[in-house]
Amino acid sequence: MTTTVIKGDLLYEGKAKKVYATDNPDLIIQEFKDDATAFNAQKKGQIVGKGIINNDLSSHLFTYLESFGIATHFVSKLSEREMLCKRLDILKIEVVTRNIAAGSLVKRYGFTEGEALRYPIIELYLKNDALGDPLINDDHAVLLGLGTPDDIARLKQLASKINGVMQDYFLQKGLKLVDFKLEFGRHHGAILLGDEISPDTCRLWDKDTDTKLDKDRFRFDLGNVEDAYREVRKRLIG
Amino acid sequence: MTTTVIKGDLLYEGKAKKVYATDNPDLIIQEFKDDATAFNAQKKGQIVGKGIINNDLSSHLFTYLESFGIATHFVSKLSEREMLCKRLDILKIEVVTRNIAAGSLVKRYGFTEGEALRYPIIELYLKNDALGDPLINDDHAVLLGLGTPDDIARLKQLASKINGVMQDYFLQKGLKLVDFKLEFGRHHGAILLGDEISPDTCRLWDKDTDTKLDKDRFRFDLGNVEDAYREVRKRLIG
Repeated sequence: MTTTVIKGDLLYEGKAKKVYATDNPDLIIQEFKDDATAFNAQKKGQIVGKGIINNDLSSHLFTYLESFGIATHFVSKLSEREMLCKRLDILKIEVVTRNIAAGSLVKRYGFTEGEALRYPIIELYLKNDALGDPLINDDHAVLLGLGTPDDIARLKQLASKINGVMQDYFLQKGLKLVDFKLEFGRHHGAILLGDEISPDTCRLWDKDTDTKLDKDRFRFDLGNVEDAYREVRKRLIG
Repeated sequence: MTTTVIKGDLLYEGKAKKVYATDNPDLIIQEFKDDATAFNAQKKGQIVGKGIINNDLSSHLFTYLESFGIATHFVSKLSEREMLCKRLDILKIEVVTRNIAAGSLVKRYGFTEGEALRYPIIELYLKNDALGDPLINDDHAVLLGLGTPDDIARLKQLASKINGVMQDYFLQKGLKLVDFKLEFGRHHGAILLGDEISPDTCRLWDKDTDTKLDKDRFRFDLGNVEDAYREVRKRLIG
């Protein structure tokens, strides 16, 4: 797909991406940075080359998901670090899907890291840095005006389908999809998958050794952070 | 109802109650203490006479709920501080129902204290002191083995009915039922309401002045703690 747009004003700078307007009001450009943050931005750093890899991986995975009928904001990869996307009204919800216990599931509920969950579970978090992105339930989501009950059910249904598709795909590439975070938004009434899909937003472990190949290497100072991101790209894209 | 039982061994001592076996394996005695704790037992104290009042109020409210077809563990009031109850396998879930924003809803999600919620919401918490009784969603509840999806739905349905009945009743007595915590357990396969219903487990505000008449007076050192408990008993029982 060839789309010519003119890059406009910076609309928003997030922790890992900048978002720019274009001359088309329906389209934005997201630019992937090397900046990395963790623990609600209490830890900050850089992962050299991460932006380039995450743009590659997200473009690849959005295209893959589209082939399964999952609507995303992805339009095209414009450059090493730039992705052209449909403009979304972002829903202030982070949708986390988990297949294996890790992270807050271990810390908060006492699961053992690495424990395969009997079935995938979905968690909703309020996207609000000041409040520390707290866990919410469906009642909170509706009461906070984040969506209708049908919207919330739709987000979970989409997350479940995306999980099924991605878990199988990653496994073919020698990776366990431990858990991942999705963000969605509205575009002319439709709910589209937004944001990115990368080792910043997915926990990915080597299928055989459980070696962590994701942002946990940065979070917990495990070393070889850049190598992990490169390894994921190599396995998925070659 | 007259039931003669012999008080047996102490089975369990909680923060606000002791539980004793009886000579009938289906029945236990819960004894209401004056001890008060807050903030996951980081704050401890005594509210003189609380145990007597909470036994009075719980006995009264369980009887009231039973008259609406809500099954509870309540059998009879035995003495000032003792209540005879059906023995339960307690479900490790706290079910919180909220009508007005207060407490963690304010702290965690930025609601304004006193804001009437557009509709009642229900929250589930894992009963686990070591983990600080964290919020859980339905997926967590099932995965943690706390109940089947049908059990969880049933708990919410019961909480919703109890809320409807109690909110109306308290309002008739000049009190706003802001929020409250319920615990349930299994008894010969049936799910019964357990624990207690008192100013320890309900936030109750005066209908006209919003004066707090519950454990928040202890939590936040608002003074006149005992008076508040006595006032609630006076309004409900006379």
